[in-house]
Amino acid sequence: MKRKGLLIVLSGPSGVGKGTVRTAIFNKENQEFTYSVSATTRSPRAGEVHGKDYFFETREDFEEMIEKGELLEYAEYVGNYYGTPMNYVEKTLESGKDVFLEIEVQGAIQVREKMPDGVFIFLTPPDLDELESRIVNRGTDSDEVILKRMKKAREELELMKYYDYSVVNDKVDNAVDAIECIIKSEHLRIDRNMDIILEMEDGFEEAMEDKK
Amino acid sequence: MKRKGLLIVLSGPSGVGKGTVRTAIFNKENQEFTYSVSATTRSPRAGEVHGKDYFFETREDFEEMIEKGELLEYAEYVGNYYGTPMNYVEKTLESGKDVFLEIEVQGAIQVREKMPDGVFIFLTPPDLDELESRIVNRGTDSDEVILKRMKKAREELELMKYYDYSVVNDKVDNAVDAIECIIKSEHLRIDRNMDIILEMEDGFEEAMEDKK
Repeated sequence: MKRKGLLIVLSGPSGVGKGTVRTAIFNKENQEFTYSVSATTRSPRAGEVHGKDYFFETREDFEEMIEKGELLEYAEYVGNYYGTPMNYVEKTLESGKDVFLEIEVQGAIQVREKMPDGVFIFLTPPDLDELESRIVNRGTDSDEVILKRMKKAREELELMKYYDYSVVNDKVDNAVDAIECIIKSEHLRIDRNMDIILEMEDGFEEAMEDKK
Repeated sequence: MKRKGLLIVLSGPSGVGKGTVRTAIFNKENQEFTYSVSATTRSPRAGEVHGKDYFFETREDFEEMIEKGELLEYAEYVGNYYGTPMNYVEKTLESGKDVFLEIEVQGAIQVREKMPDGVFIFLTPPDLDELESRIVNRGTDSDEVILKRMKKAREELELMKYYDYSVVNDKVDNAVDAIECIIKSEHLRIDRNMDIILEMEDGFEEAMEDKK
């Protein structure tokens, strides 16, 4: 039996540095992920290749994909659709390769609903860890600024519940190390390899019968 | 709120090299585990210190601990009891330190029942990974030897279901790296930090009320 790949979803609040961390992971020599190619209705820019940079779709085709449930997640920005085609992700996972998605928080929650077995990593700003003490040791900011910051952090905490892991992006290298560890250890989870274990057991049963 | 430590249980079939891997982990400079001190009814050897090497107990006291359910796991070898005192483990976890247990498979299954939140790692011999192909490509061993080996592997596979992770002990360094990754990533699990997240949320709520 072939081992299925893992779906790894990296997300977090905007401005946390998801893209930088993703690029650092993909630039590593030993990386073996497949980066999920998104679909979009926007026009290709010079040099962009269909199927490599994006799947460029017409608005009609994209809306058909939405209706048929063929997208893991999608959103509309500035009049254009962007989304993750489920078919591409599933085929890659079936081939045994891990798929890496770096997406916005709302998109990640859509993916969680469709592929609950994925590994969902929430990248947090370093100050989230210090926020508790910040509340106590209030600084010189105006109440309004502090309140706004708190409200945002409060919302981010709410969303963390939908994820499996939280990684602090204090330094890109640390975040990359943590994410690599998470992926490595998820591959070692016994519940992810149960099919293989059961198949091996069946194999033993048969082979032992033959020997008797 | 203080973060509780993790209980890490390393186990696996006898002869797989659990002790060697555990020693290698404890010899690392940056290791921060507390090694669980076992209780035993055997006499102290020269130089052994009560509370450091073992908790040396009388047979009566040990049996009282069993009856009172004060042991995470225990077994009798060659006329002496050996076991893991629950109190010691719980106190250490409460203090925020990880506890590392290296025990036999049967003991680990007892611990799983009492502390299901622990991280249970099954160390496998390198040949377990190759067993499936071995069944197909049968060697020159006698049927009897092959059958015995298969039966043993079959039993080991059965027990893996009670664990969270399986790590192949092909090289001690690889096994140590994998175990360190598992522990690191378990610390990043959101469900293990839910208490802290909820407490932070309450903190925000209160602080935001104050600001209004």
